[in-house]
Amino acid sequence: MSLITFGSMAFDAIETPFGKTDKIIGGSAIYAAYAASHLVKPIYQISIVGNDFPAEEMDELTKRGVNLEGVEIVPDKKSFFWSGKYHLDMNTRDTLVTDLNVLADFNPVVPESYQRAEFLMLGNLMPLIQISVINQLKERPKLIVLDTMNFWMETAMEDLKKVLSMIDVLLVNDSEARFLSGEFSLVRAAKKILLMGPKYLIIKKGEHGALLFHESHVFFAPALPLEDVFDPTGAGDTFAGGFIGHLAKTKNISFDSMKTAIIVGSAMASFCVEKFGPQRLKEITKEDIDIRLAEFVQLVNFDIDLV
Amino acid sequence: MSLITFGSMAFDAIETPFGKTDKIIGGSAIYAAYAASHLVKPIYQISIVGNDFPAEEMDELTKRGVNLEGVEIVPDKKSFFWSGKYHLDMNTRDTLVTDLNVLADFNPVVPESYQRAEFLMLGNLMPLIQISVINQLKERPKLIVLDTMNFWMETAMEDLKKVLSMIDVLLVNDSEARFLSGEFSLVRAAKKILLMGPKYLIIKKGEHGALLFHESHVFFAPALPLEDVFDPTGAGDTFAGGFIGHLAKTKNISFDSMKTAIIVGSAMASFCVEKFGPQRLKEITKEDIDIRLAEFVQLVNFDIDLV
Repeated sequence: MSLITFGSMAFDAIETPFGKTDKIIGGSAIYAAYAASHLVKPIYQISIVGNDFPAEEMDELTKRGVNLEGVEIVPDKKSFFWSGKYHLDMNTRDTLVTDLNVLADFNPVVPESYQRAEFLMLGNLMPLIQISVINQLKERPKLIVLDTMNFWMETAMEDLKKVLSMIDVLLVNDSEARFLSGEFSLVRAAKKILLMGPKYLIIKKGEHGALLFHESHVFFAPALPLEDVFDPTGAGDTFAGGFIGHLAKTKNISFDSMKTAIIVGSAMASFCVEKFGPQRLKEITKEDIDIRLAEFVQLVNFDIDLV
Repeated sequence: MSLITFGSMAFDAIETPFGKTDKIIGGSAIYAAYAASHLVKPIYQISIVGNDFPAEEMDELTKRGVNLEGVEIVPDKKSFFWSGKYHLDMNTRDTLVTDLNVLADFNPVVPESYQRAEFLMLGNLMPLIQISVINQLKERPKLIVLDTMNFWMETAMEDLKKVLSMIDVLLVNDSEARFLSGEFSLVRAAKKILLMGPKYLIIKKGEHGALLFHESHVFFAPALPLEDVFDPTGAGDTFAGGFIGHLAKTKNISFDSMKTAIIVGSAMASFCVEKFGPQRLKEITKEDIDIRLAEFVQLVNFDIDLV
């Protein structure tokens, strides 16, 4: 039941049509760890922070079963900082500031105690660093899930192709799937991407849900229709954490188990967007999650008679 | 088991990234009738055509159980003609030509033999004409379904509001729901629209599926992920025909029955887009439809364990 979550731990400053924050906690590995910690413990975190990352946040993660031995703390630098502004549709955003800070020369080291982890979640970062983490593991994990983004497709495609050949599940959004494959039809895009290495492909479509492709199979998971999306930041990372958290919990990596895992990931993401930052992921209880999962069942459940 | 389908019977000339047609058969009542005829017979059609509408098409409809007594044939005028060009994403299109022709002074008359129909599908046309059809029915149908579009929201909102207060189920797409309600969130939009008259609201999201709202309930039906969408023309009307066809067949207008009806409508629409015009709707068999319905079950079926 051992899960490694790799990615950024950062500060974000976010502006949405509903409000604005100063620097708050963010980063792909933060969202993934908080989401997964509701499902499985311990979680082995690999990341990097500067001298400004709050001790209370580290304590909170530790309390939730997140092992921080793999989180490097750089004493004379600042944590990664991102600032962005969402458009009215909440699906598109402008990046206002990207201060790499500690990320600029991040060279992750996998602690000895993390070896033999069965599940590896590689959050969105430079493909070469993702490859380094895989290569440091003496035993290949049972399942490697990779998140990436269009930036790496535009600037580091060869490295990205290499890491794609090393992983099991790829998470991208619809425009990234189109860019990566050169196909507009998501079905055609999926076929091409599944030839690049991953055996499973999840295409995230934001408020329109997510598609899971594997061989000739396809599964569609809706997003819960929400009255308000308050802050979409971290929703994809939260989805990833819920997804791999469910798989690590059940140790079942069949297609059917992945379908359930996508619903769990979608449920987690539906909480994430309700408040700024990872706040809601800290507040929710087992009961909240169960109620939301039941809402997903209601949302898509139907009886069919043949004609 | 009597169903009235009301709307246009027309010629379309369509250009898509995949090809181009000369004038082919189209119109909302054509698509709705072909789709519904796979589920229920007879179908009572109300529409208007000119002297140019092919006799073979009328024969084909009759053969499929579509009663054409309510279709007015104007001897000295031409049928409605629409020409449009789809963009690469197939979700947006430009209208190139709209020749109203016979539609310009369409004054539908409901034949006596159509009275006491239990199901009424009002395809997209001027709201005043839709109202006229409702008012001519001596007994209110068990279920009235209305399709409309943003054009009427911009040019005839008062009439549209009147017809909204007379119907049971409203079909609109996502941008129309937003326009009609003034709300961006579809959940908020649905709440407002359900106060305008309809007890059920279906928001069509094209390739992203459809949402059904009723009181506090919501159901999400995916669209089948397709390798190619060849021609989206008529997909919404086909969806409507499949939806009301299923309800008329089962005579069950519960929320659960509507969920199934949406899946049937989505299945019908998935055939429609495979070829130009209503061609595929003429070709498919009961077996084709059953296979596709089973694909929809596979597409969304999952098991859930609570956390």
